[in-house]
Amino acid sequence: MNSENLLKQIDFIKEIDKIKYIQRRTKLFNSDRNENDAEHSWHLAMMAIVLSDYSDSEIDLLKVIKMVLIHDIVEIDAGDTFLYDQNKNHENTTEEMKCAERIFGMLPKKQAEEFLQIWIEFEEGNSNEAKFARSMDRLEPLLQNTSNNGGTWKEFAVKYQTVYNKKKVIKNGSTKLWEYAKNLLDDNVKKGILEK
Amino acid sequence: MNSENLLKQIDFIKEIDKIKYIQRRTKLFNSDRNENDAEHSWHLAMMAIVLSDYSDSEIDLLKVIKMVLIHDIVEIDAGDTFLYDQNKNHENTTEEMKCAERIFGMLPKKQAEEFLQIWIEFEEGNSNEAKFARSMDRLEPLLQNTSNNGGTWKEFAVKYQTVYNKKKVIKNGSTKLWEYAKNLLDDNVKKGILEK
Repeated sequence: MNSENLLKQIDFIKEIDKIKYIQRRTKLFNSDRNENDAEHSWHLAMMAIVLSDYSDSEIDLLKVIKMVLIHDIVEIDAGDTFLYDQNKNHENTTEEMKCAERIFGMLPKKQAEEFLQIWIEFEEGNSNEAKFARSMDRLEPLLQNTSNNGGTWKEFAVKYQTVYNKKKVIKNGSTKLWEYAKNLLDDNVKKGILEK
Repeated sequence: MNSENLLKQIDFIKEIDKIKYIQRRTKLFNSDRNENDAEHSWHLAMMAIVLSDYSDSEIDLLKVIKMVLIHDIVEIDAGDTFLYDQNKNHENTTEEMKCAERIFGMLPKKQAEEFLQIWIEFEEGNSNEAKFARSMDRLEPLLQNTSNNGGTWKEFAVKYQTVYNKKKVIKNGSTKLWEYAKNLLDDNVKKGILEK
């Protein structure tokens, strides 16, 4: 790669710093401090490494890690959409696609295409890697809300069935982790943290 | 893996959340907000992915990413040591080793050993992967201080030669990135951001 490419890559590295300012609704573990997208992405990558053996299908772990590290970069322009938002769909939006094209497009062409493809693959959720990456993305806030006595579920009056429907995505990546998650939801109902 | 292992892994995932509270001296890009260890680790992983082609030697990118994602976890007990601290050496301390054993030791045995080995390999800095990972760790704050009109160099009156000596670690991982870094240091001297 030549110097022109390096300068593009350095500009990209500076630009993505902005995800450190994107606040999620979810709070850190046992905490009232909101998590930001960089912290969230780091945590998902660590979870993918630690939990990769629970994937039902064989996965390319490096690809899963790339997915979780970049999946929220589009929020730099588009902002975070709350999982339980009733007005705005959490699915891949035109706004997010425009942002992906702008930010990944700062990279040298071949790399820009690779990043865009990985992001689209994650959003579509069909490949084994995307399924496992999405399991991580659903599991982290479940653990956080549990540790925070209900967290955003209580704050926004989200009930068991809604949470269950969102979390069952975990099953697509890992039967074992879904089993764990389902038991945790039941426990939370018993403890009065989550309303049925 | 059995359920007992999964419970250990979940406990580990909760424990490492604490690095989000470990503040570095360095500030975010164009910012007066300190960076925390989770944000820093995420950024290094992104840099490793984007810049991997500049490594002088062939590297296992997945291993480099694991290194940068976990390298600061030991600071949960040991705290962050400032790169230019004159009283405390930044090298692998007994304190950090104790923390590595405690936190990685929360994982199932085989995984605990893998994480500890990867961390030690990073700290020793001898393998190709460790060399490249350490280049990333030195390059990020160089870019940040440049964007912050001198940042911690000005704040703590650190001069060119000291910065140069710390940054030349970049050369062990990548001739090309070291060439870029050296030019950037020279530019900073010219602009009066860094004192010779």
